[in-house]
Amino acid sequence: MYPDSLQELIQGFRYLPGIGEKTAERFAFAVLELDEEKVDLLVEGLKDVKEKIHSCKVCNALTEEELCTICSSKDRVTTTLCIVEDPKSIILFEKLGIYKGLYHVLNGLISPLDGINPEDIGINQLLERLTAGQFQEVIFAFRPSIEGETTSLYIKQILSGLNIKITKLASGVPMGADMEYIDALTLERALDDRKEVT
Amino acid sequence: MYPDSLQELIQGFRYLPGIGEKTAERFAFAVLELDEEKVDLLVEGLKDVKEKIHSCKVCNALTEEELCTICSSKDRVTTTLCIVEDPKSIILFEKLGIYKGLYHVLNGLISPLDGINPEDIGINQLLERLTAGQFQEVIFAFRPSIEGETTSLYIKQILSGLNIKITKLASGVPMGADMEYIDALTLERALDDRKEVT
Repeated sequence: MYPDSLQELIQGFRYLPGIGEKTAERFAFAVLELDEEKVDLLVEGLKDVKEKIHSCKVCNALTEEELCTICSSKDRVTTTLCIVEDPKSIILFEKLGIYKGLYHVLNGLISPLDGINPEDIGINQLLERLTAGQFQEVIFAFRPSIEGETTSLYIKQILSGLNIKITKLASGVPMGADMEYIDALTLERALDDRKEVT
Repeated sequence: MYPDSLQELIQGFRYLPGIGEKTAERFAFAVLELDEEKVDLLVEGLKDVKEKIHSCKVCNALTEEELCTICSSKDRVTTTLCIVEDPKSIILFEKLGIYKGLYHVLNGLISPLDGINPEDIGINQLLERLTAGQFQEVIFAFRPSIEGETTSLYIKQILSGLNIKITKLASGVPMGADMEYIDALTLERALDDRKEVT
């Protein structure tokens, strides 16, 4: 019904997350209207990302080099390690611009129910890095969830012999939230971890 | 903050309609996880669409050939012409599979307020096609709107000399609609155009 190339493009767009037939069609028609150079950018981006991007061999962050920009930077505090569950989390922290330590990216979180065990998320690589003795503090920055707790507990346990301070992100009421809509678990955490007003 | 190629891809996705920073990031990370061959399909689709697709020289539908599949088909009724406002509308009719005539694609609808005049939407090309004497019926399939009405009236006027039956899609209550939510104008049209129950 569509010309072949248009049909092919619609199919291509459908591989993107959350994109169904209608939106894929809309995108494909939009491409017809787009400037040549914009489409070129998209084409080059797609090719380059698949060809050049891989994991940093130290921290698993995404990079085009052997080491990511953070691992190869000379301006970072090398005694603090923030452990995250995916490369995207690093961007969130870096956008803040207040964390100056290093990162380590796990390949997800431990979830026995889904058959994801410690060895699946690259715990060994992390342990190797931590036992090298460089770090004084480790920060867990996982999403608050059963899987996050499980992973935190597991890593805490295997680090027990090493003299490393272990912290995690504070849980509580998010800034600007409407108290009416806070879920019970979050409120319980916020109450448990209440701070003295100074 | 992102590796260059990833940043480039995020920018590329942002050119698609309705795609902001967050969704573009989500797409880009999804591309990292996609199979090589799926990304290749998307890349080829983008390149092919820009290179191969153009307007059918008779009806303006999208095609990779000189004539679109409909214009070059031998199985179509060549005395009926359905006039649509964009190439996408053809797909809607073809998916139905009940219309067997030919199409003509205008480049939008007449809209004096937006500075879109008859010559901007390719009326001359349409007129040339109609005066050749091949057609007995012309169907207006524009969206029900001021612009649709204006365009219909204009074409009707310039066809007044030719012996061509002029029809348009019925307006009325859509199938399955909840009467409570029908707008007044649609209801008015449905009442005006009421049909005898047989």
